[in-house]
Amino acid sequence: MDDLFEIITSASNPAIKTLRALDRKKTRSETGLFLAEGARLVEQGLANGWKVVTLVVSTSGAERSHVQEIARKAADGGARVIEVPDRLAGQIARKDNPQAVIAAFQQQERTLDDLPKDADKIWLGLYEVRDPGNLGTIMRTADCASVAGIVLVGTCCDPYSVEAVRASMGSVFDIPFAQADFETFDSWRKTLGLQLVAASVNGTKPHTQIDMKSPSLILMGNEQAGIPDAVEAQCD
Amino acid sequence: MDDLFEIITSASNPAIKTLRALDRKKTRSETGLFLAEGARLVEQGLANGWKVVTLVVSTSGAERSHVQEIARKAADGGARVIEVPDRLAGQIARKDNPQAVIAAFQQQERTLDDLPKDADKIWLGLYEVRDPGNLGTIMRTADCASVAGIVLVGTCCDPYSVEAVRASMGSVFDIPFAQADFETFDSWRKTLGLQLVAASVNGTKPHTQIDMKSPSLILMGNEQAGIPDAVEAQCD
Repeated sequence: MDDLFEIITSASNPAIKTLRALDRKKTRSETGLFLAEGARLVEQGLANGWKVVTLVVSTSGAERSHVQEIARKAADGGARVIEVPDRLAGQIARKDNPQAVIAAFQQQERTLDDLPKDADKIWLGLYEVRDPGNLGTIMRTADCASVAGIVLVGTCCDPYSVEAVRASMGSVFDIPFAQADFETFDSWRKTLGLQLVAASVNGTKPHTQIDMKSPSLILMGNEQAGIPDAVEAQCD
Repeated sequence: MDDLFEIITSASNPAIKTLRALDRKKTRSETGLFLAEGARLVEQGLANGWKVVTLVVSTSGAERSHVQEIARKAADGGARVIEVPDRLAGQIARKDNPQAVIAAFQQQERTLDDLPKDADKIWLGLYEVRDPGNLGTIMRTADCASVAGIVLVGTCCDPYSVEAVRASMGSVFDIPFAQADFETFDSWRKTLGLQLVAASVNGTKPHTQIDMKSPSLILMGNEQAGIPDAVEAQCD
């Protein structure tokens, strides 16, 4: 296997510097990359057809056959595979006990038009959700609940941030999502024939009384402010 | 309205002491109460038929007609209504800028048998979820996604903790939930005819390929360990 691994031991290597900087939104935007840590997560990304650009394997993990299998799969897909001392893996993951495998995946740039035209399931719109951990948990739960997809409306936090990816527990690779401003979002959902329902404590009727049989898009507000009145006025 | 409000100004008043102690699981268990903060949340609880045992109104909020309306509703339902200085409200909420209204609601003790026999929607099972903020966010998202209900399996964190109630943004009053050990849970779901699907990155097929048309219960693992192999073996 040794021929598969390029060994890097210096923290000042440009590849390592870029990987470390992926905890910043700016670097993620510029490179179009994001980090996923751990064999399970990386495998799930690969299985769902996401492209690994750089795969980092820690020295202590490099001998494991399971890790080598992941490295082989990533390399087959065109990834650069790097073996680094555990210390360096820890610097990339910003953890004392890093996972044996860390991958820099290519982000999928999706617009509303790239989302499945799936109008017989429930959709979620997230209005300016700010906490990446919450966003990840919402993605995970929505994925489990067979939601068709998620639209990040307005200025949401980054679904590709380390915290969001971690909290999503792999759902970031699974549930379709896209970002849009409110106007674009609103006309898209009308074209798809989705009724817009605000998940608001202001609601005049309990949502069990709303006819969820017709295709619906539930708009969830953010952690502090909920949904602004002007947006809520657009809801059916 | 003044006749409605009993005024308490001392932090050593037993009622205040009990309210303050509701941030502890032990006190919540002993009293069967839990706290919800803010007019919106308290109104939603009242609208959904939850019983307020004690309603706290801060002095600066007591003059607002909206707050008085909530106080009237709570009192009509049998609540003791207390007006306290803002400083005391802050001590109860453990915040510098407390909401004008804080309610101690009665917990609803529900077993699996109390849950709706709703076998044509998706159910969520949460396996040993430990973080109350995550639990609240999961409840909120599941509620939005029209999940039939949630079963807290094994040793989960408390859905009535302040953090969970806050993060649920009112869904704690809305989505049916109950706690159970795995065996009880597993036989209950079989009786209901729900196929058990593990939301696991170990899954052999992407869950879009699973037939979600048949009634399903998705088991979500916790933040660290996921779902133990022994439990996963019980999944369809």
